Amino acid sequence: MNPMKVGLLGLGVVGGGTFTVLSRNAEEIARRAGRRIEVTHVAVRDAAKATGRIGDAAVVTTDPYQVVRNPDIDIVVELIGGDTLARELVLEAIAQGKHVVTANKALLAKHGNQIFAAASARGVMVAFEAAVAGGIPIIKAIREGLTANRIEWVAGIINGTTNFILSEMRTRGQPFAEVLAEAQRLGYAEADPTFDVEGVDAAHKLTLLASLAFGVPVQFDKAYVEGISTLAQEDIAHAERLGYRIKLLGMTRRRPDGIELRVHPALIPAERLLANVEGPMNAVLVRGDAVGPTLYYGQGAGEEPTASAVVADLVDVTRLHTADPGNRVPHLAFQPDAMSDTPILSIDQVSTSYYLRLRVDDQPGVLADIARILAEHRISIGSMIQQPSHIGGADIIFLTHQAVEGQVNAAIGRIEGLPFVRSRVTRIRMESLS
Amino acid sequence: MNPMKVGLLGLGVVGGGTFTVLSRNAEEIARRAGRRIEVTHVAVRDAAKATGRIGDAAVVTTDPYQVVRNPDIDIVVELIGGDTLARELVLEAIAQGKHVVTANKALLAKHGNQIFAAASARGVMVAFEAAVAGGIPIIKAIREGLTANRIEWVAGIINGTTNFILSEMRTRGQPFAEVLAEAQRLGYAEADPTFDVEGVDAAHKLTLLASLAFGVPVQFDKAYVEGISTLAQEDIAHAERLGYRIKLLGMTRRRPDGIELRVHPALIPAERLLANVEGPMNAVLVRGDAVGPTLYYGQGAGEEPTASAVVADLVDVTRLHTADPGNRVPHLAFQPDAMSDTPILSIDQVSTSYYLRLRVDDQPGVLADIARILAEHRISIGSMIQQPSHIGGADIIFLTHQAVEGQVNAAIGRIEGLPFVRSRVTRIRMESLS
Repeated sequence: MNPMKVGLLGLGVVGGGTFTVLSRNAEEIARRAGRRIEVTHVAVRDAAKATGRIGDAAVVTTDPYQVVRNPDIDIVVELIGGDTLARELVLEAIAQGKHVVTANKALLAKHGNQIFAAASARGVMVAFEAAVAGGIPIIKAIREGLTANRIEWVAGIINGTTNFILSEMRTRGQPFAEVLAEAQRLGYAEADPTFDVEGVDAAHKLTLLASLAFGVPVQFDKAYVEGISTLAQEDIAHAERLGYRIKLLGMTRRRPDGIELRVHPALIPAERLLANVEGPMNAVLVRGDAVGPTLYYGQGAGEEPTASAVVADLVDVTRLHTADPGNRVPHLAFQPDAMSDTPILSIDQVSTSYYLRLRVDDQPGVLADIARILAEHRISIGSMIQQPSHIGGADIIFLTHQAVEGQVNAAIGRIEGLPFVRSRVTRIRMESLS
Repeated sequence: MNPMKVGLLGLGVVGGGTFTVLSRNAEEIARRAGRRIEVTHVAVRDAAKATGRIGDAAVVTTDPYQVVRNPDIDIVVELIGGDTLARELVLEAIAQGKHVVTANKALLAKHGNQIFAAASARGVMVAFEAAVAGGIPIIKAIREGLTANRIEWVAGIINGTTNFILSEMRTRGQPFAEVLAEAQRLGYAEADPTFDVEGVDAAHKLTLLASLAFGVPVQFDKAYVEGISTLAQEDIAHAERLGYRIKLLGMTRRRPDGIELRVHPALIPAERLLANVEGPMNAVLVRGDAVGPTLYYGQGAGEEPTASAVVADLVDVTRLHTADPGNRVPHLAFQPDAMSDTPILSIDQVSTSYYLRLRVDDQPGVLADIARILAEHRISIGSMIQQPSHIGGADIIFLTHQAVEGQVNAAIGRIEGLPFVRSRVTRIRMESLS
């Protein structure tokens, strides 16, 4: 059988890895797919550099439109990133009747609805396993493996940079800035780390997971996003003493009134598998009503792990390209005409437990006043620790039961106005994941 | 669109769960699959009991051939277990041109080659996600999610009964027989637990995983199978002190000269995620050359978790039944004409590390004699612990480096013949899983 012909846009880390894996495992892949999958064209910015890497194994061009409009190419793999040129190229490839494989979570989290609609109208597939959690086949698991379930929630460690930083902060007892600098030296964090450390990358991925789990359109603009750059080492240490680990968690949950969609640091019980995902590893926990909890773990980034997902998509497209488009797996797991308009809830409506830390003057009545405010906002206290601070006064930590975030914020505002309260209130959400 | 019509053979735990999940989540499933999936016929031994459970929602018969030969039925779900009648019914359903979904690992581990060949010849699918690790979509992950990879090894906790027993033995410090009795009371172990505790069930599942990972025919008769019934509580305690947990592990590994295929208790470093899979939960760790390690965790048995996998297969078959059969995912992940005849290695050829425990007289020269024998069999010692035994003499525990099992057994034979050795040598394999 003729090989499937692939045009590659971008030959950076993931593009290079895709080329390497397709070459090295060509025979193993063909044994599975029933035919060879070959990169015939590559579009890059620096042609000489690309030729240096792949020789004359594929035609190299600096004009990506020569790839997406080439009639010989069956599948376009978009690995240039960003959401301007990438969007144009993906839409043009679709218009040309080509299937698309992409690892571009930013593109899909923002423009996925348009792109998937265009692909469905044209009868082509847009596959994006590599866009979430690198090599872990989490999109396939949710979209195909758990189709029996009404999915209740998805919780994930889906950014390796921040998980590496948090692991190091905990085990070395170092503050954020020092560990970030080390992560940059090791290549786990980029020179401008904003996108990772402020939770944006995780929120792109979570946006896609929420759509796959609940059958709602992608709505990145509705996601609540909070990163780890203001997280104090002291809270990581307190959490550990209390039996928790702090992770940057992507959490999306279906409730009767809407869907929670939020990325933020969270305390997780230390005995949970998810709490023990360390370093740059990723893991996603999915709870379905029939299957219960299931967890998927692996490398969420890197050259070959991400390429593993890109190539798996290429094999899927190779297998399914002759299938009746109406019977293919829908892009967002649910049929386009069966998507739901369940609203995304604002963060004020979210309900979870909270870790609250503040410094107070060590005097009678303090606790009573704070407890009264919490009670007035229907926040009940699960446990409380008070300890003298080495700079005077006392540190108090409350772990609350389930409460509504809007009420918690209102209570915090009032508590911070009390005369004997010396600090802002540090507020970190808690997730039991049970 | 017309609903897909399903004939159910068996309405026991998994059959009942399948019926329940298909009914309760009918709308959610149809939103994904694009059409409804309905059980129209059920074959059972006790018709009255079945009618009591499902009312008149489906036609109930005591003749399974009325189901597999019914021209109205699109998919036959085989959930009666065993490998005699089940085999006949599956082959007859295939001959009738029906797709088959089954949870029957014993059937497929023994007769899978014949069944898959018959299905391919007839152009129908035999889907079996529920046969391995219950609700965890591990077959889909290996067969479709990791197609880019040359898979190196698969290690799994794939029997919930034994994992529950081992967890209890460790945390309660109780011996096997007591914990087994408790597991039977709780419904985690059957009245005749042989199949589970002697590793046979895990070996059926591992046989399937090995075929999916390496593209070899199913060869249950070549699997090495050792259960947990002779495992001493004392070794679990020693392992814990040394930083390990003992798990019943299914391990299949590709080596240049063949494939290891073995189920046995194994010491795993306590910090590995797999070592922290407790109670009746299952998990499978797959290592691919591109993706690195990936882990899949969830409930490996039970009514609805297993039904989750059955129904996922029903959705897959619904989506793919109009696809060109040559482009469907091959039953055993690799194209039938691309299967490999790589041999399964005998257990004597397996190479791993070992935990060895024996009791000796406490006298000079003992260690020298044992160490000399080990060295003569090219077994090097990683660490050694010696402690006085409360009934006299001393207990010695060796942790070896990688060694060949045939050599280890030969050395054990010689050591057991030494005059100062008071006990048999307890030998438990170790897996670093790195």
